[in-house]
Amino acid sequence: MTITITAFDRSPDGGKGLARDTRVRWALEETGQAYDVRPVSFAALKQPEHLALQPFGQIPTYEDNGLVLFETGSIVLHIADSHPGLFPNDPNGRARAITWMFCAVNTIEVPILDVSTARLFERDQPWAEARMPLVLDRLRQRLDPLSAYLDGRDWLDGDFSAGDLMMVSVLLRLKPSGMINDFPVLAAYVARGEARPAYQRAFADQLEFNTREAPKGA
Amino acid sequence: MTITITAFDRSPDGGKGLARDTRVRWALEETGQAYDVRPVSFAALKQPEHLALQPFGQIPTYEDNGLVLFETGSIVLHIADSHPGLFPNDPNGRARAITWMFCAVNTIEVPILDVSTARLFERDQPWAEARMPLVLDRLRQRLDPLSAYLDGRDWLDGDFSAGDLMMVSVLLRLKPSGMINDFPVLAAYVARGEARPAYQRAFADQLEFNTREAPKGA
Repeated sequence: MTITITAFDRSPDGGKGLARDTRVRWALEETGQAYDVRPVSFAALKQPEHLALQPFGQIPTYEDNGLVLFETGSIVLHIADSHPGLFPNDPNGRARAITWMFCAVNTIEVPILDVSTARLFERDQPWAEARMPLVLDRLRQRLDPLSAYLDGRDWLDGDFSAGDLMMVSVLLRLKPSGMINDFPVLAAYVARGEARPAYQRAFADQLEFNTREAPKGA
Repeated sequence: MTITITAFDRSPDGGKGLARDTRVRWALEETGQAYDVRPVSFAALKQPEHLALQPFGQIPTYEDNGLVLFETGSIVLHIADSHPGLFPNDPNGRARAITWMFCAVNTIEVPILDVSTARLFERDQPWAEARMPLVLDRLRQRLDPLSAYLDGRDWLDGDFSAGDLMMVSVLLRLKPSGMINDFPVLAAYVARGEARPAYQRAFADQLEFNTREAPKGA
C-alpha cells in the first residue's frame, strides 16, 4: 500500500539531485507522503520487468496500490491531484499551474537538454565548437522571456505550485555549469525553490541514497 | 463566453495541420465544443498584447471566460478535464492517459523536433550531413520501444484518450517526410487517429483557415 518509486541504482550525477526521481521525491515531501525507493541498475532498465512499468527503460516510475505511472510531469501532477499542497484550490489556478508544468518540460527543458547533449555526447565531434553558439542561442531565446516574466514575482502564478516544482527542477540543470548565474532573476528563483524544507529533505534523501555503501540493485 | 484560441495568421506548413492549434481544435471537436479562432501574425506574436497571454510569443493560446492557458498539452488536458470524451471515467485510467500526454511531448516529440531542426535550421551548416545519423539514431531509440508497445494495441491504453490525441499529433510530424512508413505499427496507429471524424473536422477547419483569401490578422 506504500508508494514505491524507482531510481537509478547510482545516479550518474553522483547525488547532485539532477536525476528525475528528485522531482518526485520533492512532490511527495511537499505533500507529506511516505514512499519507498527501489533502485534499478542500468542493465535492469532494459529488462522486461522494468520495461513492463516503463516502455522506454527510464526512471522514475511510480507505483501505488496497482496504479503504475511514468513521466515525471505526470507523476507530479497525479501527486498534486491526490493530496493538498501543490495545486491551488481554484480550478483556474490549477489549470494555469498545469500550463507551467508543461512549459517546464516542453519549452524550457528541451533547449537545456540540447546543451547537455552537445556538451556530453557530441563534444568530441568535429562540429562541437562551431555548433555550440547556435545551441546556446536557442536556449537564451527561451530563458530571456522566462526571466522577464519572473522578474518581480516570487513564483510563477501566486503561491508555490507543482508548476514551480517542475520549473525549478528543470532550471537546476543550469547550476553545475554556472550558466544559471547569467540570469540573476532565474538564479534567485531557483534558490527560493532550493530553500524549501521539502526540497531540502528530498535532496538529502537522494544524496544519501546515491552515496550509500552497498547498492542493492542487480 | 465562447472559447477562443489563437493560431498563426498563416501556418508555415500551409495547412498540413502540423501547427499546434490543430491539436486543440481536435480536442474541442472530440468534446463537441464550439470555438473561435483569432489569427496572430508573426509580427504580432512578439508584441505585448500577445506576450501577455503567451510569454514566449507562440501559438496556440486558449481563452475561456477569463481563464488564459498556453502549452498545447495543458490546454488539451483542461478540455479533457472539463468535458467528457477524452479521459476515461476511472481516476487511474485518467492518470495513465496523462502519462501518455507527457510522454508525447517530452519523450517522443523532442527527438522528432531535433530532426526537424537539423533538416530546416542547420541544413546549410558544414556538419549537416555528418551529424544527421546521430540525430536519426536518437529518434529511433524512442520510436522502436513505442512501436513495440503499440504492436497489437489500437490505442495506448484501452479506448482513445487525450493521450492518443497528443501522441498521434506528435507522430504526424513524421508523415510529410515519409519517415513514419519505416514504422508500420506507428503508421497504422496514426491512420486510426486521422480517421476519427473529430480529427477530420479539425483538419478541414485549419485547412480552410490557412488557405482563406483575406487574412484578417495585423
